[in-house]
Amino acid sequence: MDWWLNPVAEISHSSRESALARQQQLTKPEGALGTLEALAVNFAGWQGTDMPELNHIDVRVFAGDHGVVAEGVSAYPQSVTVEMIKNFARGGAAISVLARQANANFDLVNFTVVNMGTAVEPPVREAVINVQLAAGTSNFCQMPAMDEEIVQRALSEGAAQVEEDADLFVGGEMGIGNTTATAALTSAFLDLSPEITVGRGTGIDDEALAKKREAVTTALLFHKKALVTPFDILRCLGGLEIAALAGAYISAAQKGIPSVVDGYICTVAALAACRLNPGVRDWLLFSHRSAEPGHHYLLEALSAVPLLDFGLRLGEGSGAALVLPLLQSACHLHGDMATFAEANVSRRDA
Amino acid sequence: MDWWLNPVAEISHSSRESALARQQQLTKPEGALGTLEALAVNFAGWQGTDMPELNHIDVRVFAGDHGVVAEGVSAYPQSVTVEMIKNFARGGAAISVLARQANANFDLVNFTVVNMGTAVEPPVREAVINVQLAAGTSNFCQMPAMDEEIVQRALSEGAAQVEEDADLFVGGEMGIGNTTATAALTSAFLDLSPEITVGRGTGIDDEALAKKREAVTTALLFHKKALVTPFDILRCLGGLEIAALAGAYISAAQKGIPSVVDGYICTVAALAACRLNPGVRDWLLFSHRSAEPGHHYLLEALSAVPLLDFGLRLGEGSGAALVLPLLQSACHLHGDMATFAEANVSRRDA
Repeated sequence: MDWWLNPVAEISHSSRESALARQQQLTKPEGALGTLEALAVNFAGWQGTDMPELNHIDVRVFAGDHGVVAEGVSAYPQSVTVEMIKNFARGGAAISVLARQANANFDLVNFTVVNMGTAVEPPVREAVINVQLAAGTSNFCQMPAMDEEIVQRALSEGAAQVEEDADLFVGGEMGIGNTTATAALTSAFLDLSPEITVGRGTGIDDEALAKKREAVTTALLFHKKALVTPFDILRCLGGLEIAALAGAYISAAQKGIPSVVDGYICTVAALAACRLNPGVRDWLLFSHRSAEPGHHYLLEALSAVPLLDFGLRLGEGSGAALVLPLLQSACHLHGDMATFAEANVSRRDA
Repeated sequence: MDWWLNPVAEISHSSRESALARQQQLTKPEGALGTLEALAVNFAGWQGTDMPELNHIDVRVFAGDHGVVAEGVSAYPQSVTVEMIKNFARGGAAISVLARQANANFDLVNFTVVNMGTAVEPPVREAVINVQLAAGTSNFCQMPAMDEEIVQRALSEGAAQVEEDADLFVGGEMGIGNTTATAALTSAFLDLSPEITVGRGTGIDDEALAKKREAVTTALLFHKKALVTPFDILRCLGGLEIAALAGAYISAAQKGIPSVVDGYICTVAALAACRLNPGVRDWLLFSHRSAEPGHHYLLEALSAVPLLDFGLRLGEGSGAALVLPLLQSACHLHGDMATFAEANVSRRDA
């Protein structure tokens, strides 16, 4: 049996109930903290304690190149994937800045970039792990993006990035062309037309948008008969970084660690993870609603209500890192507010 | 001329433009950080610099009692206002917990509770300023909530709480009965029926909800002829803490300090402030959409799109304090991300 089919960790329903009971004792009207209460109760169930805490956060940005860029689907040259890996490592990218902010607020934030496979391998850098399974994916308009072995290895490498003692896993991605792969995957998983799954990504013009739609349409037709299992869909249309993310989400759920899901690309990886192993869904938390139009359908398919609607469309895990202080607030409020009894505050009139 | 009519500080349009230009140089597709970019540009305009920073945050929770509780409009006894003041001071309330979190993340967070007037004056506590203008407001079903002098003093006391060197003002409130006053003010300012402005507040049952609607209906009829100017509306239907908040928002705008507005009660104070001095609007930032149904109409009237939609209905300034790390992220990203030139990342294809 493949490891990703192994059952996910169990959620503690008794801890959820204890946490819910505590919420009703805190000095506030019942339910007045809305989403923050639900978050605290979720973390209680995930951590198996009525007093959950967020101390150790793992942030992993997976990078990979995409053969489909040959079809002219992106506004940026493919070299940007590696240039951005360097930028992550030097601390100049959005996710680097947000990881530093998190670093000041949590006991331990482990921020690492994992190069899953770029067209040109980046130079050695601290904070970058070079897995380099291949020089990017193949152009999926002409052949499967990956072969079976590469997908398995990408899933496993993603899984290996999830540390057993983390309280939370934050996944991110970088890869010129990866909104095209995501659109193809979204169309294949949800049986949706490229008209609605293909968006402007980094901000392509009308001409590139037409090419991007055409590439996805071509790929869906080319692989039509092969798109049977979730694994097949990932193999034919996915990316190295997307498979790694899916593997990481599955492994985190198996290790009893919740994951915060970022935008369009991470969410399609999350959907792939849930299709490979449906139990994963209960260990996912959705950070934001992306400006990419296709993201809406993925969220809907996953019954996900994200925390923010900020019109983000950057990726890198930036939206997921952005919500960390909100999750921290939920746990702080839950743990540190006084109860009515402790504070000698009168309960509501009978 | 009354001080609150004095013009607000000017926003630096050149700093906004410089900040916008910088955003377009940062290593991300143009506009990819959505709301976070708009926030950074807003702070640039407010601070008159293209590199805004958030260091000194003032958090003020204004408390006051309401005569209208005699009509049976609340689920909690009036004593809770003072009990919660003690809870704020001891650090057990939601806003106390969030202020502590902010304290760990910003250079200086000044958290103070200002008792504007409670039915029974609270004992002396550190971190509580006892202004105590009156033993709460009068029951506005039978007479004006406040007289003219009290309103003027409440506005001025609120204004006095805004420190000249703060980067941001966060207002909060506490007062059993104050969603009833807010519903009456919202109905009066926006000409809306109590059917849509009166909600369940702290979670009242159907019987109390009917009494609350009746109280607001009675008050609107009783004061009908007197509700001419914004000042009159505030005087007849407002609260000591609401007037103080309005004064604080106006004073902050005059001092060139933006304010983060919390939920239903703070937003009606913000509307009152804008009706008294329309320039105030440009200095306000809206934190969240409250679960109280009437809040929607206030946000609409102020053309406000809040940052969060978390179903909060606690008040205390909790929603406003909750978004502080998001504002910090916006400024950090703006200031600390590398530009394309600095990071040697290729721009988009021509």
